[in-house]
Amino acid sequence: MKNQAEMPRRLGIIAGGGPLPARVAAAARAAGRGVFIIGLEGFADPSVLAPWPHEVRRLGAASRIIAALREHGCQDIVMIGPVRRPSLLDLRPDAEGAKLLARIGRAAFAGDDGLLAAVIRVLTEEGFRVVGAHEIMREAVAPAGVLTKAVPDAQAMTDINRGVQVARLLGSADVGQGCVVQQGLVLAVEAIEGTDAMLARAGALRRDGIGGVLVKLAKPGQDKRADLPTIGPETVRNAAAAGLRGLAFEAKATILAEREACLTAANAAGMFLLGLDPET
Amino acid sequence: MKNQAEMPRRLGIIAGGGPLPARVAAAARAAGRGVFIIGLEGFADPSVLAPWPHEVRRLGAASRIIAALREHGCQDIVMIGPVRRPSLLDLRPDAEGAKLLARIGRAAFAGDDGLLAAVIRVLTEEGFRVVGAHEIMREAVAPAGVLTKAVPDAQAMTDINRGVQVARLLGSADVGQGCVVQQGLVLAVEAIEGTDAMLARAGALRRDGIGGVLVKLAKPGQDKRADLPTIGPETVRNAAAAGLRGLAFEAKATILAEREACLTAANAAGMFLLGLDPET
Repeated sequence: MKNQAEMPRRLGIIAGGGPLPARVAAAARAAGRGVFIIGLEGFADPSVLAPWPHEVRRLGAASRIIAALREHGCQDIVMIGPVRRPSLLDLRPDAEGAKLLARIGRAAFAGDDGLLAAVIRVLTEEGFRVVGAHEIMREAVAPAGVLTKAVPDAQAMTDINRGVQVARLLGSADVGQGCVVQQGLVLAVEAIEGTDAMLARAGALRRDGIGGVLVKLAKPGQDKRADLPTIGPETVRNAAAAGLRGLAFEAKATILAEREACLTAANAAGMFLLGLDPET
Repeated sequence: MKNQAEMPRRLGIIAGGGPLPARVAAAARAAGRGVFIIGLEGFADPSVLAPWPHEVRRLGAASRIIAALREHGCQDIVMIGPVRRPSLLDLRPDAEGAKLLARIGRAAFAGDDGLLAAVIRVLTEEGFRVVGAHEIMREAVAPAGVLTKAVPDAQAMTDINRGVQVARLLGSADVGQGCVVQQGLVLAVEAIEGTDAMLARAGALRRDGIGGVLVKLAKPGQDKRADLPTIGPETVRNAAAAGLRGLAFEAKATILAEREACLTAANAAGMFLLGLDPET
């Protein structure tokens, strides 16, 4: 705003799996920005990258990734889409990658936040500005309150409160973001298997009677530039298949991908979507 | 010791799944006690109960269970073997069961400890003495220290320490007892699916390189009369199949069922078994 001559800089997108990298690219282009995507080999979906200027690189090829982002004039970087944490062996870092790895430190491999925070720090030291996907896709940030026709009842709120307690503990230990609670009982807890796998398990473990809830929270103190919890129509459909009555997530710290499709899926299944206000 | 005329009283065993009810019965008989088993319908394995005096009853048939234990002269009661927590609907309590349920309270359905502690309280109020399986099968209580030829190295100890941190948090929230950690990363966390299901998942999620560890801990402050963590040869074999290098558990608060078979399986797989001293 101060410097009206300043054009929005080209956005670099480091892309993991799923459809979100293309959504971030579309949101940036809609705002008049150029984009360039680095698709991470083995994670990024080629069909998602295809319509956009992109290169596919190994996660360990750090020097090539950084050089490509510079060649394409990207100063702002978004990291988006799930990346299964590599083992040190899988990583096979290139020369620059090995140096970066030394800066990141092996300790960063202990938890998701540790690694992502370290990657952000290193990219910042390299002169990039790391921005959150939620800053680009503002309309995808989950608002507070009930978004659906269905509203959580007293049993659902009890289950949600139990889920929030458990999810906060898991987050504080940097283990995961989600859990499923039914009738006060924690059916499943998410580590690295991902929400969809946890939902499938919870469906198999559910008991008779009133259905449960999925609670998904950002980790306490989580950097919003790294791996915000994401909920999409597929999450809603999988939750419905698992017999759940609704989803609760943290408002302002959750990406609600394809919001309209999420709401349609939830309303069709009679489920609630509840954005928990972190202030209350 | 004070009253030498006091005979060991007949032991009542309320049996969930798996082979342990028969082991408790055998240990009691070896000590000169009579036994009577209530097999919980849908959980207890008929072939495990067959050699012993027993009745099979629904969990909800509380009045029949209590009457049968009294008829058979049982004053001491052991509860042993996994029971999938019922929903209130599944329970279909009989008249006495409904009264007991009211005394236990719906709140007890929120966590395993809550329910088991309440059941122990109610049985005690009914005049029974609830004893721990570890008091009957003393030789099955896991000792402290490394029990195997293989010994945990520095990476394994790092993984174990991380697993202890996570398992304590889970236990404090009354969620579960175990987790799998590999190279500092929490691969899987146990809720109600059971250790074997968690191990199968962890095997599918493991990364290349140095294998992980299973950590299984009693919940902080857990009543040892209720649902102590149990490790058997099948646990060891499943952990080996999941690529783990060893198991760590709390000494004096873990049932090591079929200890010799556990040690043989672990040594055959080159795995360690480590009893963590809760005092240190």
